[in-house]
Amino acid sequence: MSIYLDYAAATPVDPRVRLAMDPYMEEGFYNPSSPYMAAREVKNALADARARVAYWLGARRAEIIFTAGATESVNIAIHGVMQQFPDSKVVAASTEHESVLQSVGRYEHVIAPVLPNGNVDQVELEKLIDDQTSLVTIAYANNEIGTIQPIPQISQIIQKVRAARARLGNDLPLYFHTDASQTAGYLDLHASRLGVDLMTLNGAKIYGPKQTGILYSKVGTQLRSPFTGGGQEGGIRSGTENVPGIIGFAAALDLVQADRRENQAKDAALRDELQRRIVAALPDTVVNGNPKRRLPNSLHLSWAGVDGERLVLLLDEQGVMAATGSACAANKQTASDVLQACGFSDDLLQGSLRLTVGEPTTPDDVVHAADIIIQSVKSLR
Amino acid sequence: MSIYLDYAAATPVDPRVRLAMDPYMEEGFYNPSSPYMAAREVKNALADARARVAYWLGARRAEIIFTAGATESVNIAIHGVMQQFPDSKVVAASTEHESVLQSVGRYEHVIAPVLPNGNVDQVELEKLIDDQTSLVTIAYANNEIGTIQPIPQISQIIQKVRAARARLGNDLPLYFHTDASQTAGYLDLHASRLGVDLMTLNGAKIYGPKQTGILYSKVGTQLRSPFTGGGQEGGIRSGTENVPGIIGFAAALDLVQADRRENQAKDAALRDELQRRIVAALPDTVVNGNPKRRLPNSLHLSWAGVDGERLVLLLDEQGVMAATGSACAANKQTASDVLQACGFSDDLLQGSLRLTVGEPTTPDDVVHAADIIIQSVKSLR
Repeated sequence: MSIYLDYAAATPVDPRVRLAMDPYMEEGFYNPSSPYMAAREVKNALADARARVAYWLGARRAEIIFTAGATESVNIAIHGVMQQFPDSKVVAASTEHESVLQSVGRYEHVIAPVLPNGNVDQVELEKLIDDQTSLVTIAYANNEIGTIQPIPQISQIIQKVRAARARLGNDLPLYFHTDASQTAGYLDLHASRLGVDLMTLNGAKIYGPKQTGILYSKVGTQLRSPFTGGGQEGGIRSGTENVPGIIGFAAALDLVQADRRENQAKDAALRDELQRRIVAALPDTVVNGNPKRRLPNSLHLSWAGVDGERLVLLLDEQGVMAATGSACAANKQTASDVLQACGFSDDLLQGSLRLTVGEPTTPDDVVHAADIIIQSVKSLR
Repeated sequence: MSIYLDYAAATPVDPRVRLAMDPYMEEGFYNPSSPYMAAREVKNALADARARVAYWLGARRAEIIFTAGATESVNIAIHGVMQQFPDSKVVAASTEHESVLQSVGRYEHVIAPVLPNGNVDQVELEKLIDDQTSLVTIAYANNEIGTIQPIPQISQIIQKVRAARARLGNDLPLYFHTDASQTAGYLDLHASRLGVDLMTLNGAKIYGPKQTGILYSKVGTQLRSPFTGGGQEGGIRSGTENVPGIIGFAAALDLVQADRRENQAKDAALRDELQRRIVAALPDTVVNGNPKRRLPNSLHLSWAGVDGERLVLLLDEQGVMAATGSACAANKQTASDVLQACGFSDDLLQGSLRLTVGEPTTPDDVVHAADIIIQSVKSLR
């Protein structure tokens, strides 16, 4: 028996998503740019997928750019703005994903600090946005500790700066990008309610195909794509369209967004029960992130004196798959930058565990996993 | 009944490729960077796919960069070299694909002319490579007229320039990139026999999944990736690996390369019969490209006084799917840049048809398609 508790790292493809993709592999394989009827049908299916994605974002179809995944979307957003305004500055939160931090690293950039609960320090953020800032990029929710950022409030700060600029005749635009990869299964994605100009989504985190995603780009946003080619996706993401991938992404987004309130309630109940059991048995457990504003499927714990790497291996031997942090960060074999940014002590940094439940997780899984985790933590002390 | 003769635009996914991908959709969906055993198995499958691709190129595993398709590979090759040496020049053939021409357009570039048969003018090419050239990019075969370039001979020109530079103490590197997207199903891909430093392959042209491909990058090639992120693919192509896509690409390349001589003979015989029938009935047919060195599946024809766009629609009505040129170019609704580069008259430019056979094409298809094409051309005169 094995229990997977790492849905933040990867999700299985939903069988219904796969069913939606199937007709475009061996049969509807045509290049959507080809002139014959059969290819125009494929083109129509693409247009339909775009309209469905646009619906969930309250967006126009032309604002949806299909990409090869979240890293690519983030790259297009950041390089696309910064190459347009190369003398400007970008502001990113200290807890951003590698794809954001490495991308902003190529430009003049400012890192906005977070509070110990993972939320961006809004007072500091407002001070850090200056006359030369053209882009602010802050993830909707953190991929390690699950803290949800108050995107509409941050957007208000940005709108205030914009209004001040307009009064001063400074015509440098100020764009707001959010990576919503971890939130698409649970939270509202309506772009104008959020108040974002650019938004990244990732199919591989919502039971869709890997290396699929979108960049939402509000009409009027000036992007100079780092990609050059045949001019697909409004010239922003050239290359023959990944038809099955796009259809699969749209189907996955449909499924998670249509049921997001039920998913939220179900996964939060499972997560809360997992937390309750572990904390009851191990009272010195530190629960990380913002307890009131975190992803419903996310539980991030620390224990002083426990080696997180060893804990993960011990859990794996007993059939529980979990992680110390993000898979990308794990790859680097260094302590979590996110936890460092939140000001964790070394001891708690080293002794942390990320547990994320998902659609297939059952109450039984939670009971068994809690037992195994409790015993394993005890045995490592 | 419909007959598809546009395999240069898109190929269906081979059922065996799909079978190879299947285990990585709902079951082996793990993030290859995750620490548990099940994810390490996925990582091993990736390593195995990389080794198989490397085998066909005579390459080391570290030289294979999995990408999201040919346009992306071309972008990484061109921007990757030119951003490293921003004051240098790039040379491209006049018949290159949009992804190449748009990419070189961002740098100081020189366009090398082609002969009427589509082959690069080697005498001119040698003159155009100067002290400041850091990259030469020439497709292995043209995607419209099918002409195959003598890549090993062009490589010798480049090696001569390199030797001269070494004598003069000029340490600017000179790299040779080829887009082999159209040739992978038929021709030798051995990188050192071809003498290339960078090579692009595309899964969607060899019965593999869409938006999959590789960039071969010879050890020592200095690339500054335009992509920034988690550091996957040796830091060149960040983003969680598209596991099913990579497995599918490797399976597709295995299948076409293992049978490439048989595929070559079978498709050339079909193509030759198609040509023989059409030319016999329409003696003023102009057969484009290099008759002795063209892709075995490719037939590009022109007729004076015929409207190619109307011809394609008329063929479609009768169940024959073909194109006037490349799908990307068709998208722009302009006359073929490739044919213009070859020096075609306007009349022949407007009256051209690209026919490409593929694995599923049968001798019966050829007989029926030839009849329909002959009658349609006649009816348009």
